[in-house]
Amino acid sequence: MDLTALRTAHPDHWNKAAAIRTLTLDAVAAANSGHSGMPMGMADVATVLFEKHLKFDAAAPNWPDRDRFILSAGHGSMLLYSLLYLTGYPEMTIEQIKNFRQWGAITAGHPEYGHAPGIETTTGPLGQGIATAVGFAMAEEIQRARYGRKVADHHTYVIAGDGCLMEGVSQEAIAFAGRQQLGKLIVFWDNNNITIDGTVELSDRTDQMARFRASGWHVQAVDGHDPEAIDAAIEKAKATRKPSMIACKTHIALGSSAQDTSKGHGALTDPKLIADAKAAYGWTAPAFEIPSEIKAEWEAIGKRGAVERANWDIRFASLSERKQADFTRAYDREVPKKLTSVIRALKKDASETAPKLATRASSEKVLAAINPLMTETVGGSADLTGSNNTKTPDIDAFMPENRKGRYVYWGIREHGMSAAMNGMALHGGIRPYGGTFMAFTDYARPAMRLAALMRIPTVFVMTHDSIGLGEDGPTHQPVEHLAISRATPNTYVFRPADTVETAEAWEVALSSKETPSVLSLTRQGLPTVRLEHKMNNLTAQGAYVLADAEGKREAILIATGSEVAIAMAARELLQAEGIGTRVVSMPCMELFAEQDEAYRRKVLPAGPVRVGVEAAVRAGGWDRWLLGERGREAKADFVGMTGFGASAPANVLYEKFGITAEAVAEKVKALLA
Amino acid sequence: MDLTALRTAHPDHWNKAAAIRTLTLDAVAAANSGHSGMPMGMADVATVLFEKHLKFDAAAPNWPDRDRFILSAGHGSMLLYSLLYLTGYPEMTIEQIKNFRQWGAITAGHPEYGHAPGIETTTGPLGQGIATAVGFAMAEEIQRARYGRKVADHHTYVIAGDGCLMEGVSQEAIAFAGRQQLGKLIVFWDNNNITIDGTVELSDRTDQMARFRASGWHVQAVDGHDPEAIDAAIEKAKATRKPSMIACKTHIALGSSAQDTSKGHGALTDPKLIADAKAAYGWTAPAFEIPSEIKAEWEAIGKRGAVERANWDIRFASLSERKQADFTRAYDREVPKKLTSVIRALKKDASETAPKLATRASSEKVLAAINPLMTETVGGSADLTGSNNTKTPDIDAFMPENRKGRYVYWGIREHGMSAAMNGMALHGGIRPYGGTFMAFTDYARPAMRLAALMRIPTVFVMTHDSIGLGEDGPTHQPVEHLAISRATPNTYVFRPADTVETAEAWEVALSSKETPSVLSLTRQGLPTVRLEHKMNNLTAQGAYVLADAEGKREAILIATGSEVAIAMAARELLQAEGIGTRVVSMPCMELFAEQDEAYRRKVLPAGPVRVGVEAAVRAGGWDRWLLGERGREAKADFVGMTGFGASAPANVLYEKFGITAEAVAEKVKALLA
Repeated sequence: MDLTALRTAHPDHWNKAAAIRTLTLDAVAAANSGHSGMPMGMADVATVLFEKHLKFDAAAPNWPDRDRFILSAGHGSMLLYSLLYLTGYPEMTIEQIKNFRQWGAITAGHPEYGHAPGIETTTGPLGQGIATAVGFAMAEEIQRARYGRKVADHHTYVIAGDGCLMEGVSQEAIAFAGRQQLGKLIVFWDNNNITIDGTVELSDRTDQMARFRASGWHVQAVDGHDPEAIDAAIEKAKATRKPSMIACKTHIALGSSAQDTSKGHGALTDPKLIADAKAAYGWTAPAFEIPSEIKAEWEAIGKRGAVERANWDIRFASLSERKQADFTRAYDREVPKKLTSVIRALKKDASETAPKLATRASSEKVLAAINPLMTETVGGSADLTGSNNTKTPDIDAFMPENRKGRYVYWGIREHGMSAAMNGMALHGGIRPYGGTFMAFTDYARPAMRLAALMRIPTVFVMTHDSIGLGEDGPTHQPVEHLAISRATPNTYVFRPADTVETAEAWEVALSSKETPSVLSLTRQGLPTVRLEHKMNNLTAQGAYVLADAEGKREAILIATGSEVAIAMAARELLQAEGIGTRVVSMPCMELFAEQDEAYRRKVLPAGPVRVGVEAAVRAGGWDRWLLGERGREAKADFVGMTGFGASAPANVLYEKFGITAEAVAEKVKALLA
Repeated sequence: MDLTALRTAHPDHWNKAAAIRTLTLDAVAAANSGHSGMPMGMADVATVLFEKHLKFDAAAPNWPDRDRFILSAGHGSMLLYSLLYLTGYPEMTIEQIKNFRQWGAITAGHPEYGHAPGIETTTGPLGQGIATAVGFAMAEEIQRARYGRKVADHHTYVIAGDGCLMEGVSQEAIAFAGRQQLGKLIVFWDNNNITIDGTVELSDRTDQMARFRASGWHVQAVDGHDPEAIDAAIEKAKATRKPSMIACKTHIALGSSAQDTSKGHGALTDPKLIADAKAAYGWTAPAFEIPSEIKAEWEAIGKRGAVERANWDIRFASLSERKQADFTRAYDREVPKKLTSVIRALKKDASETAPKLATRASSEKVLAAINPLMTETVGGSADLTGSNNTKTPDIDAFMPENRKGRYVYWGIREHGMSAAMNGMALHGGIRPYGGTFMAFTDYARPAMRLAALMRIPTVFVMTHDSIGLGEDGPTHQPVEHLAISRATPNTYVFRPADTVETAEAWEVALSSKETPSVLSLTRQGLPTVRLEHKMNNLTAQGAYVLADAEGKREAILIATGSEVAIAMAARELLQAEGIGTRVVSMPCMELFAEQDEAYRRKVLPAGPVRVGVEAAVRAGGWDRWLLGERGREAKADFVGMTGFGASAPANVLYEKFGITAEAVAEKVKALLA
């Protein structure tokens, strides 16, 4: 590249972009780790975007109608941190930049949501940024339809790298965004032809522009170092009604001796390389110092949106009080006051009528009561609407011609769905839930983990949660997926036993502000086990005594979901033989673990033998409750799965795999013998 | 559709295809569940493929040079079962068809590898069939390069549905296959425009032909009910050097009243619908009966390849004895006799020289010794070659111009890589291993589960296995991924502590015939802890006493991988205070669980307090060893992670998260107090 030509053609632009490049070089050198090349390559695009297009006010980073900027290529985090520092986000001080990648700094190796305003989502796991951005763009459409253009009218901009586009989830995002004509979604592809292993062509020769076009995108190609071309392309992208992809031909690690190489992708820390690159940039300031006129220009950019933001405040204030309150409540993730009474009424009715229902159907019942009340919910399914029971009659399909639609037909795209749900939750104003078969937790996992890490309350509706789904066989029968979600920090895994517990689980899930929930729901019908109405949400305690022992308490059966009824039947068998048996329903291990020890000991006192019952592997957190505070394997056992399932009717499978009341009773007797 | 026109145009073809359709209707009706529409829609394509193109011999279903047929749309399993029955695969009797989806039948809801010959891979989780097929096609290329066209010269055919093409993994497969010009891979897209939720256009309007073309595929579109057009398209697909996609416009549930509807996707069980459909087919035979002349025609198809197969036997016999032995050994998944001595020499050297090495580097050392010996290995990485240390100097890149290459640059495609590795293992003759960062287990999960379910020994090299990776932060730091893999049935999770254990782990992984392995390897350097050479493979026992207590045994520290050295340091601290402390290294919990109880009790005797040490969540199987056979939480504890990690240098993170020798020693003292 002829840097001199670039510098002289657009000197003001050049210096602003050089500020990003030098901060990146300095921070990576100080950390002695990180990724220099991407920010150096994309500095021009980012500068044009922030200077001329991005609607934001650094002093009010949470302004709901700001444009969102998603750095899907999260390893280039210094691009984002530089921009936040330069434009004057108060939290992003030069000290933070100097402490890049150090303990306690908000400038983590990859952008971490919650560390600082301006970081809209956690990125790093590639491809998920673009998929999450789809959810941001959807949320904007929904808010605009609901509150009008004067309140919601912003763009979602994404920088994606070659890695993002190779990850399969990008295809799910691209195809879905194209179908939905998300015209305010604009993706910059950092087309630098370099990955860690070498040139892109080592593993890919896809014509990315043709690929995006095939899914209905508006596509342009520009020189990613030509500010005028970048600006013109963004103008065009904003004008089209299609989602836009701008292929930006860039040079990774621009201006350094590592330019256009895999080495340039990583940490450039060699002092001579850094000095030479700065010299080529015409940069003479010391490390971490931005000449004041350049900093002033950047800060002016950071203030550019202040007036627009103030005008927005006025427009927002012109909404009806009720609309304002609704809007704010949803952004604050507060539930409507009426939720508790609606849930209670539903529980009371279920306890009285004692329906036999699959918990996926119970869930539909609950949603049918909640959705009209909580208009911020947006439901959906990865092409299993009738099986996941996620659609209620009051909500229509979200479509280009119906942006008020609150139900999303995601297609067969569990990962894309989950990432986009995260995006809606992050955008604010929306409470997303979406369904698939629980076994396909495997497909959704990368986004489920990010929800937990980002502390956002996405709800994953996982139906067909055991061998109880029957004939579809072991590929569709989860056995280890409760364990997977339970092992994940900051995740509530609910396995309700009947309609009452399902209602309670939904109440906790929808009241949660910082924890995602997994609802593990059955395909098969279950009897109501909560026959006595309780005002309190017992599921919120994680576990509770469903039926106590009659006579001397010799055994405790601990069960979840569909196996609670089996435990109750086992209790009948044991009591008939004079063995006093308590049944503990444990719909949420995480919440039980959060209770104080006194309560836990009350529910699981020392003394009796304990048998856990769950149609899944014992590794799903059971040993803590079976062996803990009680001890000795000789006094505890487990009835569940020890391997994968099989294809047969559900009742046959329960019998063949030995998950029956008789088997439970036998285990108890063997332990007592 | 004008069925009469179809029937009269190609009556012989029609009847053969109708046999598939009626068997499907009968089996689904008998099971009262299943998926009728796909086999009914794709029967014509499958008939032409099997009749005119597929190279197979039903009497010798494991013939190595057969064409492979992969039903990626696995829910249409009755298509495959019908074909296997009709062409005369001995195991696929009419009784099996009648017992579709019943306990003990080989005709599971989705095709399960291992249930019957002719089922080349387990499918059902959508998109994975096509991604697995990529591995089959690669294995064929590699075998052809190595043994010549006379021994390996076959095609891989795939039927993929709309769901397969919506799943992101399909893009990973398509892009990779295009780059690699896998010309013998031919994909039929069942373009029926129907998914469970409605028409495809509800969630997708992608121009699939343009999408495949963008990645370098040869693309054709045909009427999927016109046998001549299908035949001609397959001819063309075989002639091109590119991978081929044939878009087959079909009618789901053809000829029934549910044709072209979502209802037609599922189980058609209504007797009148079935009767009407059969009448429209001109089919008068009773349920499950195939008129003898039609069955005879199908059986002739099943025998069509017998001569070719016999000729292949002769050609194979003409190979040198050594080549024959090599070929057969690899297909039988036998290791070379020399492997044990090579591993022992490596162990001895490591114990003597006691290098400080990251276990990912230890792994590279081991592979450098193994790869020249086991020429059936094919390594690779999802664009992290230098980080995963998966490439050894003796193996070159697999490329269109170098099919002898045994190293695969997979690109940033963890799921596609893992599925294709499974495909190579299933094809036979290849032992695949591939690397990524352990946190991206999340991306690879769907294929890792299928490896376990299918009982194939794929090796997943997961480096950067804890907070020990440092600055990249929590998105890249696994904490729950050991738990995830350990909760998965039939999976060995190895977390070796040094070069010696790494060598032992590789020996077990490469000797395994039916169990996939996860190697959990560090980024950071570790001291050698196995300083005394042992001939035996101690890792194969799962856990063993690394250092025994001096004096009275009061504490047992159980640790894995990078934390074994910490446990050893804690032991020093404790012994210095006179507290006799045993250190147990536990590189593989699954193998330890397989040992007899006497051995387990010898390693973990009752009495001493126990502290586990692992830089991961306790949910990763620890409670069994901490609480089991010993009891009482008051006598056991764990030093590890309780939430996600953070971005900082590794040594800082270990300190901040309290995973130190001092913390371990303190826990022991608190338990003893």
